[in-house]
Order: sequence, then C-alpha cells, then structure tokens
Amino acid sequence: MGLWVQKYGGTSVADPERIRAVARRCLRARAEGHDLVVVVSAMSGETNRLLKLVQSVNQRPSEREQDVVVATGEQVTIGLLSLAIQAAGGQATSFLAHQCRIVTDSTFSKARIKRIDEEPLRAALARGEVAVVAGFQGIDEEGNVTTLGRGGSDTTAVALAAALRAERCEIYTDVDGVYTADPNVCPAARKLDRISYEEMLEEASLGAKVLQIRSVEFAMKYRVPLWVKSSFTDDPGTLVCEEDAAMEDVLVSGITHDRNEARLVLRGVPDRPGVAARIFGALDERHIVVDIIVQTAQQDGRADLSFTVGRADLAATREAMDRLVPELGLRGVESDDQVAKVSIVGVGMRNHSGVAARMFDVLGKEGVNIQSISTSEIKVSCVVAAKYAELAVRALHTAFGLDRADAAAER
Amino acid sequence: MGLWVQKYGGTSVADPERIRAVARRCLRARAEGHDLVVVVSAMSGETNRLLKLVQSVNQRPSEREQDVVVATGEQVTIGLLSLAIQAAGGQATSFLAHQCRIVTDSTFSKARIKRIDEEPLRAALARGEVAVVAGFQGIDEEGNVTTLGRGGSDTTAVALAAALRAERCEIYTDVDGVYTADPNVCPAARKLDRISYEEMLEEASLGAKVLQIRSVEFAMKYRVPLWVKSSFTDDPGTLVCEEDAAMEDVLVSGITHDRNEARLVLRGVPDRPGVAARIFGALDERHIVVDIIVQTAQQDGRADLSFTVGRADLAATREAMDRLVPELGLRGVESDDQVAKVSIVGVGMRNHSGVAARMFDVLGKEGVNIQSISTSEIKVSCVVAAKYAELAVRALHTAFGLDRADAAAER
Repeated sequence: MGLWVQKYGGTSVADPERIRAVARRCLRARAEGHDLVVVVSAMSGETNRLLKLVQSVNQRPSEREQDVVVATGEQVTIGLLSLAIQAAGGQATSFLAHQCRIVTDSTFSKARIKRIDEEPLRAALARGEVAVVAGFQGIDEEGNVTTLGRGGSDTTAVALAAALRAERCEIYTDVDGVYTADPNVCPAARKLDRISYEEMLEEASLGAKVLQIRSVEFAMKYRVPLWVKSSFTDDPGTLVCEEDAAMEDVLVSGITHDRNEARLVLRGVPDRPGVAARIFGALDERHIVVDIIVQTAQQDGRADLSFTVGRADLAATREAMDRLVPELGLRGVESDDQVAKVSIVGVGMRNHSGVAARMFDVLGKEGVNIQSISTSEIKVSCVVAAKYAELAVRALHTAFGLDRADAAAER
Repeated sequence: MGLWVQKYGGTSVADPERIRAVARRCLRARAEGHDLVVVVSAMSGETNRLLKLVQSVNQRPSEREQDVVVATGEQVTIGLLSLAIQAAGGQATSFLAHQCRIVTDSTFSKARIKRIDEEPLRAALARGEVAVVAGFQGIDEEGNVTTLGRGGSDTTAVALAAALRAERCEIYTDVDGVYTADPNVCPAARKLDRISYEEMLEEASLGAKVLQIRSVEFAMKYRVPLWVKSSFTDDPGTLVCEEDAAMEDVLVSGITHDRNEARLVLRGVPDRPGVAARIFGALDERHIVVDIIVQTAQQDGRADLSFTVGRADLAATREAMDRLVPELGLRGVESDDQVAKVSIVGVGMRNHSGVAARMFDVLGKEGVNIQSISTSEIKVSCVVAAKYAELAVRALHTAFGLDRADAAAER
C-alpha cells in the first residue's frame, strides 16, 4: 500500500497499443492500493529522429538548443500515457521537468539532478491521480531545459523514488531482469533474483546496458529498492538492493563484455614527472574518457604505456597522441580497434583470493591472450582480442558455475 | 534600426532546408541593424501528426494533456531554427512559453494571453541574439501548458510585438499578402498594399485564413503595424494598419466567401418570451457557434427562424433542434448543408449608402437567390446556395471595381 515509482523505457511505449498496455499496468498497481508516480522515456526511435533533425540544420549543435529539441520526445509520451490512463478509467496528470522542478546543473546533454520539488506530485497523488513525469529532462537554475544523457529516464525515476521516499522503484524494460551474462552471447545465462547495488554499478560501468550508471548510484546512495522488470511479461524481475550474507557466498555474480573498445600503445614514453599528465591532459581536453591504463617499465628510463578508449574516440585519440610524438620523443604510437573488455563481477571476491588467477587460467586454457588487466575490489577486467569476446564470456560463465542447471543438456 | 517581430508559419519551416532559408532571412534583418524576435509554428503536418497520436490513445482527450502533446511541435522548431541561425554564423536563444512567461488563462486548447515577461527577451536582444520564441503555446498561472488554438502563433507574435513595443510585426506565410478575394476562386484578385485593422478583422471572421482573428484584435488594440508577407519571395506584402482617408475612398476592399456553412430553418416557432433563449441556449450548451440569424414574422403568432452554423456542427445542431420540436410545438426543422456565405468588406461603406442594395442587385442579375442577409457597419454578408459561391465572388469583385487592370485582357 506504499508509494511506488515505475519507469517505462522507449520500447515499452513504442506505439499507441503499447502505451495502452502500460496504462493498464499502472491501473493494476493503483487497484492494489499503491500511490503511483510513473516516469516515461520517449517512444523508441523518437530521440534518434530528433537528433537527426538537429544534425540536418547544424552539424556542431549547441547542446542547449539540442536539449530543447530532444526533450520533446518525453513530453509527447507523458501526455499520451496520461490520456491512455484516463481512457482506461483512471485519473492522471502529466508533469514536465519545470512543473515538478527537477532542477539540474547546467551541463547540457548530461546534466545531473540537484533537487526535485515533491509538492506538486504529492498533491496529484492526494487527488488519487497517477503522476506521469517526463524522464530524461530537467531545468537548470535559470530555467533552461537540460537533459540527463542516454538512459537518463532511469535516473529520473530513482531520483523521484528517493525524493518521495518510495517503497520501491520499478524499471520496466524489454528484458525481464538482470542476467549473469548477455543471453545473446551466452545461452546458458541465468536471470538473477537479486544483485547488490555495487555489483550492478560495476556491471553498468562495464557495458551492461540495463540501467544508467547514475541511476544505480542514486539508488545505492538513498537505498532505494530497485526492480528491473519486463513490461511484456509478469516475471518478478531482478531486485537491486543492499548486499547481504547470501550474496557474499557467490564468488562471481555476472560476466560482462564490451566490444566498443579500442586500445593504444605508446612506445618509449620518457619516465619523468609530468609526462603522464601531459598525455592524459591532452585526452581530457578533448573529453575522451580513458579506461584501463597499464605501464610497462623498460630498462633505459623509458616505458610502454597502453590504455583503452571508446572505439568512437579512437581517431581523435590517435590524432592527439601523434601530435605528442615529437614533443615527448615517443618511439611510436600503435592502436587496435579490434579489442573487447571482458569482466567478472561479484561481491564475493572481497573475501576470496585467487579469483583473478582463476580467470586468467580459464582464458589461458581457451588460448585467449590477455592484453591488459584491471581490477577493483569486486571486479576483474581483461582486454582481449575482440574475436575472443564471446568465447571468453561463455568459458568464464561455465567456469564460475553460473550456467543454468538445464544449460548443459541443451548443448 | 528598431525592434522587429517576425513570425514564420508551418509551411515556412516545413523541412530543414526551409528552416535554413528562414535563418538567412532572420540574419538579413539583423544585418540591417534590427533587433529581432522570431516566433515559429510547428513544422507543417506536425500538429496533425500529434493530434492523430492523441486520438489513437483517447478519443475524448482531456484538453490539458492534449495541449502537453501538441505544444511539442513548436518546441522542436525553436530549437532547430536557433541551431540553423547559429550554423549560419548568427547568435540565437530559444524560448518556451514558461521561459518568457507567456501567461494565459486556463482555457486549454484555446487559451488567451494575459501577459508576457519581456525581460528574458530583452536580455537576449541586448546580447545581440535573435530571440526565437515558441508560438501557439502558453502557461497558465499554475504553470500548466496551454495552447492558443489554430493559428495561435500569429497571436503570440502580435502579443510579443505589443509587449515589446516593436516597430513592426511581420507574419510570414505561403501567400505574399492579403488579396481582394481568394485568388484560387477569383483569378482577377489583386494583392492589397494596405488594409485597415477593422477590415482585416471582418475578413478573418468571415473565413479568410490569412491571420488568426485574435492576432488582428491584438494588433488593433495595441496599434501594432502588421505586415503579411511570403517567406518564399521578396514581395513587400500587405500592411495591416490604422484606417486613413485614402482607405475610406474605397467602397469595398475585399470579397470573402466561406463554404463550410450549413443553414437550418425552424418552422412555426411560437412568438413568446423565452423561446429564442431556449433554442440558442441548447446550442450554446453544446458549444455550437451560431452565425446569421433571421426571423420571419408570421400572422398566427408564430414565426420561421433560420440560422447558420459551421457544417461540422450540423448533425449536433439538428439533433438538438429535433429534441425541441415537441417541447416548443415546432412545425418542423429543415436543414441545408449546401450553402455558402459571401461577404463584401470595406470601411468606405460607413460613408456611402446603397452598397448593400448594389450587392443584392449584382447577385440578382446573376440569378443567385439570397437566403439570408447580415450586415455590420463595414460588411454585408449573404447566404447563398454553395454552388453559386464562386460565381458570386467573381461577379461582386468585378462590380465593385476590384479586378486587376490586366485581368479583363486575360479573360
């Protein structure tokens, strides 16, 4: 009988028929006695259509005006869902960011939420209405329209759940939960009943596309119980929640992979103060995010330095590095856009040694060469040749005991 | 070197190429030294696409939520035009209704503007930017999104011109000015260089589609010089302005016609107090707008009453009237959906008698039977059979000396 926040992604509201189905699902939660705040994304394809229009008039668009255009996608959906709820006999009111004051900073196209005014939403709930809130959008202190970046509606939903101290936040998508690996790559993957915030955060950072990273950070910070569910089934989905003892018994809870990676190697980097800052400063200026960095010491006061970047940033990265060759006296720059990052994640690693070694052993036995390694308290990532990504995921999934009980029979 | 307001309609911003052309036109005005506020409509077809989406989820939509959906059309265009101006080397900032506080009443789908906060616009102009404002939309005192009705962007433009005390307001459309008659019906029609506010107001009321009625009322009230121009040519267009002596010399400045009319006749209406109120009250309840009303006295204390309504309202009107037959003891209800209203408009009529008589004479000579007549100080309207509408317009156009000098040669 508590307050629930539900979020429906673009595929869940892709056309009028699906919007009507979402309206029925909302009214089911109302009939069970819950107060309901619903966050929606743009109808699938709409944001890309709008971005294409933007590109057609300006190939280097100002992010302020681009945000004005793309924010309309969610505005259409909140109106349509409110109307569909009303057509199905319920009561609903839509809210734009400026109407419930989802105030963000002024970083257009990837703004961060600072605060939300819960009063207009509480008033709608008190009148028995479903409050239908536009995801993805905000306003800054000056009233400019901002957007939260791809997947930003997840963050809107969790931020609302935190502000309203909701009993739960349900994220409806086109998969029925969080899996031990991408089922398209690993047919033996299992849906998880539960996963800890920290594991989910690592998975989101490592390329799992289920939730926007910011939304998991928010959920973890405010301890919002987060359900990942499918809007096309009645499966209970996966609960993202606080870690407990049972979770720690599992060494590895998921295997992720990200094929949108590229790796660079700088040969003969001088081993003196300020050189690394010069290299990574040049990338930062270009807003290029650098991932796994490995430095190999050499004998003559020079080292080889390798790092990974998103594949889309490879050309800009090479250009920036090539410029540094004369300045730093580098021996050369090599790059490879055919790499992938394969990772294992699990809170159980904290209390068990040897997990990384076991991962390297599994990959070695499959003949997969490891190019770089990166570890954190609850994950190990390896950069491998892209062609081995699927093989690596499947081998690790089996080795760490994640395969469905019935999976062996299928093979 | 003054402040100009320009408004571009849906066909002027129909696609990226046309939006780029509008951006160039804006920058031309800037290069001439004018401060510029630009109002845009939705790209043509967009509002209808959105209304269709609304209908697909709810056939009796709440007007609040419908306004939330359809207001997105203009939001897309302000972003795109601002980006196109920037791409062409200019500076621009877009404004939604809530950002320059275009405050309206709460009559969703046909709201009326109450006030505008000119400060954010003045600040943008002071920075040398083109202020690009969303037409058609407003917010009410509670911050709800409202819209101003079809053609509402005209009213946004004139209201802004009034609030900012602009030197002129230019309405860009797909015709190059106001004509003496619809050129599609009357090939001899001439473009007017000037027309008075009052004539323009009558013409807009009588079915001319060039400007929204409210925009002309606003322009008249605040004495805003209003130019109607084409965005596809460099024609100077038509100036809508205060009446002067030269205008009064012209008996008739325009002939309008409206084919979307239907006429009803109630036979044997009892001649006693309250009956007319009962009849027109029943129509008012259904929000049916009644136009030309004529009552013909009869001998036995009963009369025939005829009136016109919009053709789309005919079915609802008949149903309402049929219900009154037993209550009022009417002898019958007749209706005809094949009628048209043909009108002559001109401020010169004020000082000349015999204009109406001459109109009836012209129609009589062409064999056009007049079903009803309505007059005001500066117009005479006749209801005729729809099939005579074009003939009537052409005959009146010639008879009142409006034909282009070269038109006779063409025939």
